[in-house]
Amino acid sequence: MFKKLVVLFSFAFISACGADNASDEQWRALDLNNTVLLTLPHGKVVIELAPQFSPKHVAQFSALVKKSFYDGAKFYRVIDGFVAQGGPEDGSDKDKSVPILAIEGQFSTDKNWSFTAVQTDDLFAAKTGFKKGFALASDNHNSAWLTHCPGTLAMARGNKADSASSHFYFVIGQAPRYLDKIMTIFGRVVYGMAHIQAIQRTSVIEGEYAIDSRDHTPIVSMKLMADVPVKEQIIIEVENTESADFAERLVKRRARENEFFYNKPPPVLDVCQVPVRSRLVKLQD
Amino acid sequence: MFKKLVVLFSFAFISACGADNASDEQWRALDLNNTVLLTLPHGKVVIELAPQFSPKHVAQFSALVKKSFYDGAKFYRVIDGFVAQGGPEDGSDKDKSVPILAIEGQFSTDKNWSFTAVQTDDLFAAKTGFKKGFALASDNHNSAWLTHCPGTLAMARGNKADSASSHFYFVIGQAPRYLDKIMTIFGRVVYGMAHIQAIQRTSVIEGEYAIDSRDHTPIVSMKLMADVPVKEQIIIEVENTESADFAERLVKRRARENEFFYNKPPPVLDVCQVPVRSRLVKLQD
Repeated sequence: MFKKLVVLFSFAFISACGADNASDEQWRALDLNNTVLLTLPHGKVVIELAPQFSPKHVAQFSALVKKSFYDGAKFYRVIDGFVAQGGPEDGSDKDKSVPILAIEGQFSTDKNWSFTAVQTDDLFAAKTGFKKGFALASDNHNSAWLTHCPGTLAMARGNKADSASSHFYFVIGQAPRYLDKIMTIFGRVVYGMAHIQAIQRTSVIEGEYAIDSRDHTPIVSMKLMADVPVKEQIIIEVENTESADFAERLVKRRARENEFFYNKPPPVLDVCQVPVRSRLVKLQD
Repeated sequence: MFKKLVVLFSFAFISACGADNASDEQWRALDLNNTVLLTLPHGKVVIELAPQFSPKHVAQFSALVKKSFYDGAKFYRVIDGFVAQGGPEDGSDKDKSVPILAIEGQFSTDKNWSFTAVQTDDLFAAKTGFKKGFALASDNHNSAWLTHCPGTLAMARGNKADSASSHFYFVIGQAPRYLDKIMTIFGRVVYGMAHIQAIQRTSVIEGEYAIDSRDHTPIVSMKLMADVPVKEQIIIEVENTESADFAERLVKRRARENEFFYNKPPPVLDVCQVPVRSRLVKLQD
């Protein structure tokens, strides 16, 4: 057992140190043009978009946000432990006005592609890890994809692969990894996840009254942080998952050396259970 | 790929049908003496206790509930995506009045032991499955244990294995499976999980103000359902995880035959991502 532990630690450490983006910086500033401020009636949420992984989805979502498309829209499909989905009224002119997107569920990787490795032989993928703050997975055939961890922002779609437009969802429960690759993930919550968890559920169990649509949680506003008056900007920095510090945290998290662990758990890590920390630089003036 | 699918389905189906508790009943009534009504300021939560797995913890917790021990206590350690922990004021006379418990993190199984199988070679265990509604895992050496899925209720402890008394936590995020076996799980939320998710977080990120302890969410009351006046009882039935119906749902969930899955996900199931449904028989008169 001990030997196996040592091998795994070395692996994780070397992988991270070998990443092309290796940096000594523990924290990374967000690009305010790819950061969204979501205002809910009960609090503010900050989202980091992922143009490096899902450029077309981010471009369309950002354009919609810029023209206040989502302001007043509602979270109309909210299932506890699963997703909080929002968007325009289904089938409305507004809904139909948005172009259909080609899915960006996975991307090709070449020999030079690297990431901060977390785990091999994860239940759903050959490898998991992080790249620029985002949890992802890859196979052994030059393909990688973002994973459906809690806090993930992805685009909803119809039955066809290429059928997403403006309806989106946040993952609010145990990672629904079976949706990996067949949905387009294009962002993640970096601040205010508890407010996402407080969105009114719309699904009910057998025997309960239906939730009146008037009680669905509305989006007060959604803006690109770059377009928010400086005084009202929330400035977040996120953990740099390419840093030596983060690699060291992975090693420690796997080892569980703290005496609380009187018996050691298996030396494995669920990529969706590894926190990527945020810190608040400025809340509001 | 297709062949592998077929094998896995057969396995799941046969396992469930072979379970000693196999039943045609899709729903199971709860024992009101092992059901807890937790009243929070913002809603009511129903918890099923697990005396069959953790008898000493359930006995002590039930006895404390019966004498209103938790009424007015607070959720003082609430970390988004992880746990909501509550209990008496740390180190108070009330706190110290409660006997220490020996851990019940796992239990022995014999050849006649059976469960509804979900997955082999889960990242954390050789096998996972359900028994009487509870998600669990087992190794190949006559040992099994409840798993830390979202909604799980477990007893907090100090560094020593045998150091739990009255402080408890609900899992509110991605399953922290590394805590399996070294903590005692003794219940699960069967109704009102959204209210658990709405408990005030107490942990803050760097740069945020601390949360005043006066803002911590209090427990209005916690009662055994059998002790609640009939008019105020919430009567829940839960899915019978030993039923043929549940086994069939597992098969379907693994197969993902719906046309939404234009590409099939891997034929695996995360036991913590399989819903065990509840239905409401009576809310309140």
